[in-house]
Amino acid sequence: MTITELAPRIRNREISPVELTRQTLARIRSLQPKLNAYITVTEEWALKQAEQEEKEIAAGRYRSLLHGIPFAAKDLLYTKGIKTTVGSKILADFVPDFDATVIERLYQAGAILIGKAGLHEWAYGITSNNPHFGAIRNPWDPERIPGGSSGGSTVALAAGMCTFSLGSDTGGSIRIPAAFCGVVGLKPTFGRVSRHGVFPLGHSLDHIGPFAKCVADTALVYQTTCGFDSRDDSTVDRLPDFAVCLPHPRLDGKKIGVPRNFYFEKLDPEVEAATRKALTVFEELGAQLVDIEVPDVEEFNAVARLILLAEASSVHARRLQERRQDFGDDVRSLFDQGRFILATDYLNAQKRRRHFVDAFRTLLESVDAVAMPAVPVTAPKIGQTKVPIGGEEYDTRMAVTRNARALNLTGQPILTLPCGFSAAGLPIALQLVGAAFDEKEILEIGHAYEQATEWHKRRPELVS
Amino acid sequence: MTITELAPRIRNREISPVELTRQTLARIRSLQPKLNAYITVTEEWALKQAEQEEKEIAAGRYRSLLHGIPFAAKDLLYTKGIKTTVGSKILADFVPDFDATVIERLYQAGAILIGKAGLHEWAYGITSNNPHFGAIRNPWDPERIPGGSSGGSTVALAAGMCTFSLGSDTGGSIRIPAAFCGVVGLKPTFGRVSRHGVFPLGHSLDHIGPFAKCVADTALVYQTTCGFDSRDDSTVDRLPDFAVCLPHPRLDGKKIGVPRNFYFEKLDPEVEAATRKALTVFEELGAQLVDIEVPDVEEFNAVARLILLAEASSVHARRLQERRQDFGDDVRSLFDQGRFILATDYLNAQKRRRHFVDAFRTLLESVDAVAMPAVPVTAPKIGQTKVPIGGEEYDTRMAVTRNARALNLTGQPILTLPCGFSAAGLPIALQLVGAAFDEKEILEIGHAYEQATEWHKRRPELVS
Repeated sequence: MTITELAPRIRNREISPVELTRQTLARIRSLQPKLNAYITVTEEWALKQAEQEEKEIAAGRYRSLLHGIPFAAKDLLYTKGIKTTVGSKILADFVPDFDATVIERLYQAGAILIGKAGLHEWAYGITSNNPHFGAIRNPWDPERIPGGSSGGSTVALAAGMCTFSLGSDTGGSIRIPAAFCGVVGLKPTFGRVSRHGVFPLGHSLDHIGPFAKCVADTALVYQTTCGFDSRDDSTVDRLPDFAVCLPHPRLDGKKIGVPRNFYFEKLDPEVEAATRKALTVFEELGAQLVDIEVPDVEEFNAVARLILLAEASSVHARRLQERRQDFGDDVRSLFDQGRFILATDYLNAQKRRRHFVDAFRTLLESVDAVAMPAVPVTAPKIGQTKVPIGGEEYDTRMAVTRNARALNLTGQPILTLPCGFSAAGLPIALQLVGAAFDEKEILEIGHAYEQATEWHKRRPELVS
Repeated sequence: MTITELAPRIRNREISPVELTRQTLARIRSLQPKLNAYITVTEEWALKQAEQEEKEIAAGRYRSLLHGIPFAAKDLLYTKGIKTTVGSKILADFVPDFDATVIERLYQAGAILIGKAGLHEWAYGITSNNPHFGAIRNPWDPERIPGGSSGGSTVALAAGMCTFSLGSDTGGSIRIPAAFCGVVGLKPTFGRVSRHGVFPLGHSLDHIGPFAKCVADTALVYQTTCGFDSRDDSTVDRLPDFAVCLPHPRLDGKKIGVPRNFYFEKLDPEVEAATRKALTVFEELGAQLVDIEVPDVEEFNAVARLILLAEASSVHARRLQERRQDFGDDVRSLFDQGRFILATDYLNAQKRRRHFVDAFRTLLESVDAVAMPAVPVTAPKIGQTKVPIGGEEYDTRMAVTRNARALNLTGQPILTLPCGFSAAGLPIALQLVGAAFDEKEILEIGHAYEQATEWHKRRPELVS
């Protein structure tokens, strides 16, 4: 059930948070061995919290639509008294003494932390194939990757091992696993959600955001977690301009930008077909499709990679010398590359970034959202290093991040939502890019699309 | 005369802007050969502008207290149709096709641009001894440096070759020349004044600010030039919380923090005596002096230097290869050093910076301002590479920037104002550090101090 379905029943005490938590824990016990979604299941804490919340609700102190709802947090969000590994061997026993701001806000809303979800080591990769905690498996096909780095969060959600979850996105880490696992994910505007108490990957690119089973749920979690935080000076003192309420079943008058270059090139044919089909749904809902031109995205993907390489390596300089052998091969290689980037190159990449930011800002002045495939392919197999697209072979990491990475430069909000399935039964997703600080627009457009389609209702066989 | 004295007379047409401009141009003709304050004197443009403004005022369209007042702009502020050299050989013939936002705002206020003031090459040094345009000379002793990098702006002002001027401060470039030339200078809060159309030195450290003959004039120019600018995304959408009006003759209840470590160490004895004397004036005015402890400033001076080296070099990477011989030796050496700083070191310096920012933010919660000498010494001679302090010799650049540099990290506003003279007749200055976005407080405290003293009224012999 979605939050939207559960909340009124929890409020009127038809559904017990303790019972809901127990059922979710039972589901975890049955599926965790197959899917490896969690690094830590907080069974005891969750049950204690659930009892507490249930008492509160019984006493008439219902706090929010998230009250009594179990969620999973990517294991780079600090949780007081609960292990936070960042998917690494080095922090395998690290127990923070404070909560990340987003965790604090969810606790205040009455949500119940049921576990710390697995991720790519240090959040630095897109497979979630973790050398220390094992591969995380896609519930639509356990031989396939769930995407990453927030793979555990989307697997837990898609497999019913939580009701919503949180992830982070530095180069696609919310959008890619949302796409591969068939759930909704939102990368909010940079500055909208606090990163206080979040282990950093790339400081100028990191975004925190929610995963849920539908757009309304996503909006709800987003609204609960967003807002200014004096402990993170990148956050902006500006309220979102809507309450949770997405009533527009039609899109008359809306303009949806469709890039004619780059983002619809080098696509798996099934991904292209599903995405093109989604565009016709927007038209049926009354929206107008507008051809747009984007600047040279290859260049900005390179700019984003360089910025990330430098920022990520700056976090680990000492550990990389002292505990080299405790890094997985793939992330160590990336950290090593970043160590030798010059400050002048980094700074010039940041300056160049502004051209892309300006270009996308301008684009969003002429349309209400830009629509494109979230990922050019469906989930590859675990260990698969090359993916074929239109007869050519591409490096998996490069292909999977192709449509995501440069958009971390712009800071604009991006909603990822299911828009189809491949013949092999793998999810395909659309991403909707909005203007900075206008999450409302893409959530409303996404909601209207979702109301007109059924993709978000499909569940993996393993689960049903 | 000060702006405060001129403005009412211009308004009631006792003083003619054309006449004032002519007198100022005459002064420039007589003193420019001795002091070399200007790179470009905009005689024709200034006279044309003055005629225009005079007509407007005659027609009853008096626009602001700056209407009809001649000013000088540091020659790194873009001026449409007027050469902007940045003190470099490479841009010796560069004519921008737009005005810097601050220039635009002063034009809108009716101020008259009388010249582009000289500076240290690329604003990257504290002597203003420019290999391409010649040494700029201190009006209090033409054998001495005026300080830099905004040396031309303070010389022009101190010598009556303009009524106010603009400078920029990356590591002390407003505070040092204000101190050495005996004028008032304000480094506003980072984000308060637009850098659009300003040639950059260190992007995360650059501040633009005014010089004037008294605090009230300084406040006036500051208020005219500050404010959000959509063309500079570092500016903040926040209005200063005062109108020009500095009525407090007393400082009862105010707390002035006096650092017991670092900032009063390694001082020329005359500088120390004058500054300590100034502190007693605050007490006489009713303020309370509070001993404070600052963090290890040596470390943060080093952090600021590293950040500046990297940022400055990122601007010139290509020119440095293609036109090596067209850089002065001192700045080329600095640009070369910056080229080989690693991005990870730069990023870690930026992270470390936050500790200093937090420490100074906390300090300013317990006091209304922090007072200290602006520069540990009085103006050295042109070409002097070492300065003696208490029997020991120090590198001139290091000694002169000692009390200024780290404070560029904090972004807090700093007012520099005259507080005495050495036996040799050289100006000595105090700097007042305020809380971020509270320019009001330090301007009021500085104004009260100024009302109780006479230092700001003294003029160089050469001028009187």
